[in-house]
Amino acid sequence: MKTLVILAHPNISESGSQQFLLNSVEQFENVTVHHLDRHYPDGKIDRQAEQELLKKHQRIIFQFPFYWYSSPSILKEWQDVVFAGDDFYRPEGTILKGKEFGLVLTIGVSESEYRAGGRESFTVDELTRPYQAVAHHMGMSYLPHFSIHQFVYLSERQQQQLLIDYQFYLTGLQPASLENRTNWIIQALKTTDPKSLPIEKRARLEAIITELSERQDILADLKATLTEF
Amino acid sequence: MKTLVILAHPNISESGSQQFLLNSVEQFENVTVHHLDRHYPDGKIDRQAEQELLKKHQRIIFQFPFYWYSSPSILKEWQDVVFAGDDFYRPEGTILKGKEFGLVLTIGVSESEYRAGGRESFTVDELTRPYQAVAHHMGMSYLPHFSIHQFVYLSERQQQQLLIDYQFYLTGLQPASLENRTNWIIQALKTTDPKSLPIEKRARLEAIITELSERQDILADLKATLTEF
Repeated sequence: MKTLVILAHPNISESGSQQFLLNSVEQFENVTVHHLDRHYPDGKIDRQAEQELLKKHQRIIFQFPFYWYSSPSILKEWQDVVFAGDDFYRPEGTILKGKEFGLVLTIGVSESEYRAGGRESFTVDELTRPYQAVAHHMGMSYLPHFSIHQFVYLSERQQQQLLIDYQFYLTGLQPASLENRTNWIIQALKTTDPKSLPIEKRARLEAIITELSERQDILADLKATLTEF
Repeated sequence: MKTLVILAHPNISESGSQQFLLNSVEQFENVTVHHLDRHYPDGKIDRQAEQELLKKHQRIIFQFPFYWYSSPSILKEWQDVVFAGDDFYRPEGTILKGKEFGLVLTIGVSESEYRAGGRESFTVDELTRPYQAVAHHMGMSYLPHFSIHQFVYLSERQQQQLLIDYQFYLTGLQPASLENRTNWIIQALKTTDPKSLPIEKRARLEAIITELSERQDILADLKATLTEF
């Protein structure tokens, strides 16, 4: 599976959160990061090229800072230009049918303000209805949004967790069940070259992989047992 | 009260509905129609000029065709540029506090498709949450959206009704109660110059004004009576 990240950010070099996210996936061969502001400094979107890019990927992610409860304008322009023509209106299915669609949002306000009675009054789920409607229209499967609130206040440990979660959001098998997440982590650990680690950590890597795999086996046994009753 | 219509439409000369709406208010002195695509063909918004324009009006309307459940990109760009600076983030109130805010939407799909189970899956109210959140953030009073679905299929009579409703939405006292609407219509009829009408219609104009005024009096009496019980 290949993932396309359509990224919109007018000032990305000054965004700590975006730099952090981009660094965390730049080695991933199955992830294409497509930065609209960099590709189209004049705002003129190449419809044909963008449609070809969409066809080559199975998971489509819109990644952007939440500006006035929506995307920066260039991503809206991208939608209006790229989602044009019969391919996006056929009743029997658009060219995006069956693909997965998700949002990665960086938000400057705390999550607790996004609720009735909170400062922002609506949840992020409510505010992103237009994207859910796009996914519905296209016949795409909508992934729960991935939101990062107030990145600057995250501890180093929270940032490490964020990095794993983000990588999983882009490349892991959905839904984000315990089983899918654990398999994904085992796979990621197995592809780690032990020689890249300090010698004292190599045994620890082996132990973690064994431990996680055993837990997966135990869980699978439990599930099998439960279905017998 | 003065009303500012911030209009976004990339191809307005070919839009029957927009031409119809614009013609219906071009004589109104208290309505300013501000067409972004015409003022800013290069998309570069003048923040200072726009903020001054906002300050001079008490009712702010965003008018646009519903493209992918949101506005054309130039209006989003306008928001990102104009709603910048401390004036729009002060906890004690932004410069828009106390003003009214509404949406005039032209929509190509029938209203009945905007519901759970319908083709578009969500209501227009759900899809316009980001604008409601903007109004909430700014301390503006949000008016129920004014949506025109499938203008081309409206009969002449429906178009006439639409024209009145639109004029009221822009200039009438809110909420759109029977009392406010009737007073607004009486006022509009009273300012009609009888000499502008064919002679056989002048008496009819007088009769309608008298009839509506009497009905208002009767309703006022009824309300007064009801409060006595």
